[in-house]
Amino acid sequence: MITRRGFVTGALAGGAAAVLPESASAATGRRSADVVVVGAGLAGLSAARDIRRSGRSVLVLEARSRVGGRCLSRSLGPGAADVANMGATFVGPTQHRIRTLARELGIGLFPTYARGNLIWFQNGRRTPYRGLIPPVPGAQAIAEIADATVEIDRLAATLPADAPWKAAKARALDSLTVDTWAQQNLSSPEARALLAVVIEGVLSVEPRDVSWLYFLSYVRAAGGTSQLVANAGSGGAQDFRVRGGTQGIAIALARRLHGGLLLSQPVRQIDQDAHGARVFTDSLEVSAERVIVAIPPHLAGRILYSPALPALRSQLTQRMPIGSLVKTIAVYDRPFWRAQGLNGQANSDQGPVKVTFDASPAGGRPGVLLGFVDGDDARALSDLPLPERRRLSLGSYVRYFGPEAGRPRRYIDQVWDKETYTGGCPVGVMPPGVMTEYGPALRRPCGRIHWAGTETATTWTGYMDGAVQSGERAAAEALSRL
Amino acid sequence: MITRRGFVTGALAGGAAAVLPESASAATGRRSADVVVVGAGLAGLSAARDIRRSGRSVLVLEARSRVGGRCLSRSLGPGAADVANMGATFVGPTQHRIRTLARELGIGLFPTYARGNLIWFQNGRRTPYRGLIPPVPGAQAIAEIADATVEIDRLAATLPADAPWKAAKARALDSLTVDTWAQQNLSSPEARALLAVVIEGVLSVEPRDVSWLYFLSYVRAAGGTSQLVANAGSGGAQDFRVRGGTQGIAIALARRLHGGLLLSQPVRQIDQDAHGARVFTDSLEVSAERVIVAIPPHLAGRILYSPALPALRSQLTQRMPIGSLVKTIAVYDRPFWRAQGLNGQANSDQGPVKVTFDASPAGGRPGVLLGFVDGDDARALSDLPLPERRRLSLGSYVRYFGPEAGRPRRYIDQVWDKETYTGGCPVGVMPPGVMTEYGPALRRPCGRIHWAGTETATTWTGYMDGAVQSGERAAAEALSRL
Repeated sequence: MITRRGFVTGALAGGAAAVLPESASAATGRRSADVVVVGAGLAGLSAARDIRRSGRSVLVLEARSRVGGRCLSRSLGPGAADVANMGATFVGPTQHRIRTLARELGIGLFPTYARGNLIWFQNGRRTPYRGLIPPVPGAQAIAEIADATVEIDRLAATLPADAPWKAAKARALDSLTVDTWAQQNLSSPEARALLAVVIEGVLSVEPRDVSWLYFLSYVRAAGGTSQLVANAGSGGAQDFRVRGGTQGIAIALARRLHGGLLLSQPVRQIDQDAHGARVFTDSLEVSAERVIVAIPPHLAGRILYSPALPALRSQLTQRMPIGSLVKTIAVYDRPFWRAQGLNGQANSDQGPVKVTFDASPAGGRPGVLLGFVDGDDARALSDLPLPERRRLSLGSYVRYFGPEAGRPRRYIDQVWDKETYTGGCPVGVMPPGVMTEYGPALRRPCGRIHWAGTETATTWTGYMDGAVQSGERAAAEALSRL
Repeated sequence: MITRRGFVTGALAGGAAAVLPESASAATGRRSADVVVVGAGLAGLSAARDIRRSGRSVLVLEARSRVGGRCLSRSLGPGAADVANMGATFVGPTQHRIRTLARELGIGLFPTYARGNLIWFQNGRRTPYRGLIPPVPGAQAIAEIADATVEIDRLAATLPADAPWKAAKARALDSLTVDTWAQQNLSSPEARALLAVVIEGVLSVEPRDVSWLYFLSYVRAAGGTSQLVANAGSGGAQDFRVRGGTQGIAIALARRLHGGLLLSQPVRQIDQDAHGARVFTDSLEVSAERVIVAIPPHLAGRILYSPALPALRSQLTQRMPIGSLVKTIAVYDRPFWRAQGLNGQANSDQGPVKVTFDASPAGGRPGVLLGFVDGDDARALSDLPLPERRRLSLGSYVRYFGPEAGRPRRYIDQVWDKETYTGGCPVGVMPPGVMTEYGPALRRPCGRIHWAGTETATTWTGYMDGAVQSGERAAAEALSRL
């Protein structure tokens, strides 16, 4: 039960990653800090770092028994030096905030393996290829895809970065789904299918789920479609990996808080008045001047607020569902696909795994294939028992990389939809009508409460880089009012 | 703080409505019942009634210090015999379940006042009229509205009542918003504006917020558009009122539970295993064979479930936001509009109040005007202080009924978006893509947990009638497995 959970002694990291015994927490009673941060993902920890650096006191309250949020590392098995990233995995060259942060923490990056061909799998047929656009059949489809990319980038570039809802035709762009736009603008089924693969792969939702304006703003925040969907090694969001796993960044940040972090402390209620704010968990009451809520909007909606939040903000938390994602990891003695001239990347129209990457450690031993199961496919897979998830996922791997892919020495996966304190992955998205009406409530402080989390970022929304930006922005807001 | 709230002693009803002192609750410790019901709205109370009738034990846990959920009565002022309905107000002739229930409880209905003209207010011009279609300018617009009504009813009638997501073209109908459908199918701005008034008035959301398939299924559940939008006295959902107010039905049901109800007990977590279920509040642990969760889906998402719910159900709770609604009540010595040949009903394209009704008690003293502020207008109004809300709302009343409407002896309103344990009104709706993918999870039991609430109804979804149907259905499900 919850009250019991509040007393569970937690460790900073799950799985095989480093544990921080000094931060284990079974806290009760009253505390105080200049700023309380809710959530120990990259957003909350980045905010806490800036608060602490400025000489103010900060206390981070984390619901889980680990830090990192959507950054989660698990062991690759006995003897393996590196870890598997079960959530956030890649870093891109233009993601300056997360790159700077990693550098400052002494955490290195290394290039994602990218030599050789990708696999395109469509209508049951497997085709090796290179370049951005997969070898879909038909010149008309290719032309439509190229045109659509240009059009998406053109429209995205017209959006004000800080307020896409203020764009000239925002209401019109926000009244339709990506699916409706595709039906109106793409005549070839192949082009529409590829757009669906992109939406599923990037947002883990279906084209019918998400507003056209929201997708354009997501493209805008990344700096263009090529940044989002680039193959590894092509200058986009998939170019680099993090030594020791992405959760290591969160763990390093948490260590530097020197105890200003309590685990297993889900926040239930936030009160505020002219004198200050009070943050309640099941066992703790923390007084603060300012509160930074650094969790996805749909989770922020589970907290009770007194007085009630403004209607726009309260309703926003009902209107940003998060995608459905299962990440699947298969570990082999060696990255056998490399010898076949393949780089481990596949894109497919057939699930459950529609997108794969080579996720081997920097040294290439063991060989690791990472698979994404998104949207509908993820929900279908999520409720099956592990052996069945393994069988179906490896079935996809075999279609792309041959029978050897079906015999890994280890298979693990992460069902994000079933994580109570995430509820899905990678990012809260907006259905039609939400951005134009509720967008202004995304970052606007509510009294003493400031909002962080990658959903609130204006650059690289949905990525680790956006999480860091959001935390730094929220910290600056809070500090300016202390 | 929450933990304190759990100990607050509550009374069954708010405001001037009858109080049930024997049900006041400051419960701690352990309890058990065959069935626990979460939520004391009409759905939960109807379920509890059927469980109890069958000879099984039941315990209802209600978060607030009152029963009734979206049925809430407040005093009309000193000396007034009747009450104001701040939420659910009307009953229609085909709403057999709520009519039967009221009759069994000895609660009478009376006709909504309907003699005389309605007011149509568009582009700053006020026009008295009769009949279903307001006097919008232009024969083409009138023809389009009539055609659209026929088309909506035709499409709605093709949907399977229990599973609209199984309709032949469900995916296509569910991929677009009502706004997109209107843009594609209505050429006159007047027809589109009228459809917007309908969507706002019926669902308290904007046409861009909601799936076309969802709207059609809502029409299907009501038995056609004329049922939903009929003027009072025309055979539709607005024909009758409830003597003593709609919350009186909930209070009467609660009395008959003879103590099987605890107030001020928000449910935090539900655990289940092969041996049974355990429902936790801050101060209470209740063991049960079956649990009926009778709250809107977005609130059900705030409860923690162990083990985690199936992915489809968990994600559904992120994808059914509730509308934004302020209900405004002005009380006058007499219903002065009646003498002017007006029945108190107005429809308008200008907010904040776009729809009004005569909500006077059966005897016509005092005179009461009820106004609906929906969607965008509601959010704009919700955060203003009461004097400002009063000024703006009465401004609308004056436009429709003249200067006398600006001088009520009492003004009260209900800002539903700011109610923590509702978060909006009248009903959780579905954006595009939700019904076809998540619809099957709406009523499907999850182990020992059954789902009720008007959102889960197949007849009169969103109305009191649907709430009763859902409670009776969930009770039958639970009883069949005891």
